Amino acid sequence: MEGLVASAEAAADLAGAVIRPLFRSALLVEAKGDASPVTEADRGAERAIRDHIARHHPDHGVIGEEYGPERPEAEWVWVLDPIDGTRAFVTGRPIFGTLIGLLHRGRPVLGIIDQPATGERWIGVEGRRTTFRGPFGGSVGCRPCPEIGGAELSCTSPDMFPPGRDAGFGALRRAARRTTWGGDCYSYGLVALGLIDIVVEAAMKPWDWGALVPVIEGAGGRVTDHAGRPLTLESGGDVLAVGDPALLPACAALLSV
Amino acid sequence: MEGLVASAEAAADLAGAVIRPLFRSALLVEAKGDASPVTEADRGAERAIRDHIARHHPDHGVIGEEYGPERPEAEWVWVLDPIDGTRAFVTGRPIFGTLIGLLHRGRPVLGIIDQPATGERWIGVEGRRTTFRGPFGGSVGCRPCPEIGGAELSCTSPDMFPPGRDAGFGALRRAARRTTWGGDCYSYGLVALGLIDIVVEAAMKPWDWGALVPVIEGAGGRVTDHAGRPLTLESGGDVLAVGDPALLPACAALLSV
Repeated sequence: MEGLVASAEAAADLAGAVIRPLFRSALLVEAKGDASPVTEADRGAERAIRDHIARHHPDHGVIGEEYGPERPEAEWVWVLDPIDGTRAFVTGRPIFGTLIGLLHRGRPVLGIIDQPATGERWIGVEGRRTTFRGPFGGSVGCRPCPEIGGAELSCTSPDMFPPGRDAGFGALRRAARRTTWGGDCYSYGLVALGLIDIVVEAAMKPWDWGALVPVIEGAGGRVTDHAGRPLTLESGGDVLAVGDPALLPACAALLSV
Repeated sequence: MEGLVASAEAAADLAGAVIRPLFRSALLVEAKGDASPVTEADRGAERAIRDHIARHHPDHGVIGEEYGPERPEAEWVWVLDPIDGTRAFVTGRPIFGTLIGLLHRGRPVLGIIDQPATGERWIGVEGRRTTFRGPFGGSVGCRPCPEIGGAELSCTSPDMFPPGRDAGFGALRRAARRTTWGGDCYSYGLVALGLIDIVVEAAMKPWDWGALVPVIEGAGGRVTDHAGRPLTLESGGDVLAVGDPALLPACAALLSV
């Protein structure tokens, strides 16, 4: 596993080197929200990671947001989202991230949440304590929070739960102490630092959640679907992350409303 | 004005020195969303700024979030929000900020948006070009965006516009190209960098908007109430910021729905 971690770190370094020069570039300002500059950064970073994997792990599979699946039936499959939080990237917020996950027979066993702008990096490995480094401080470890009424809830956007499909989310929001918005993968990293208690989102793809599972579970939390079941490649895209596993049954019950 | 700018920068430095050690501290993790650690950071930073003003500008007034008004009828009045974005601070997001504004006979003439965690700082002075420095790049200058349909809209939280009072905001959201959430004062800084086109918020206090006006207007944009009128100490707390002044009439019309 050491070699795989080193390889994932090298891939994150390569992606960051592609992404950083494009962040807040004149191109983005001129594009006024048009997707093309972020798509270029996304594609360039994914190509850099895929080249690295092909060179060092030619028998591994890859599923990436930009270039689709390649050998998805392999024993080891990398799941890649070079820029998670494209809207954050487009609007100049430095808390978008690069997600690199590794599945072994479908189970997430390695995950990196890398922040190319801020220089923060979370590394999670199944069965080990998650590690974190970065310039703003913070210590790995989900905090105890057995009651939903005391929980900080986070979600990237209320638009993830459109009217008519938002009853469960609404019930959870009302039960939680407070809701903060925005954040994408960054919020999951903050769960691993014991600063957020619940993240609930929808319409996620394997490359959105693959890297998050080992990071949060290696800090003491859990990442599941909205019913509290482990995520698999067949999961529907609903994701629930809790810092304190004791929150899971109550969150799942509210989300089923 | 040079002396006042230097003084405001020194005050921001003092506030940052108080705030940084408390960001992501063990105290915050243990507090689980309780306000006391952030209140301590907020108060300590405001005391540092007030001491500085009292020493260097003893005849100036001060209106701060934590310690209330002092000589608010003075010719020069400082408006202070040591931690704008307390929820961002509490949840470990590095994009909370320190706001230091200076009003001359009620008109905002100087503003600093300082980011103690990321090291970014915007400085706006009435009649001058806004300046910006920080580690992530970005150039001062609001971008042209004459049509709402092409605009990136930002708002800290949908909870600012509760059901029954959200018709105008809803109309503006539907008209804009896209809405991103979270950000507090950071979003206004991104308007000044030409990366966001519209920010619309409510329930703002003078210390929330005093510093924003010179920063955005010195970058070519406008900051008004929801009807497009200049903000004053008597304004009701509704704030609309646009990068392209051509957006103002259409935004105000939609917000009046």
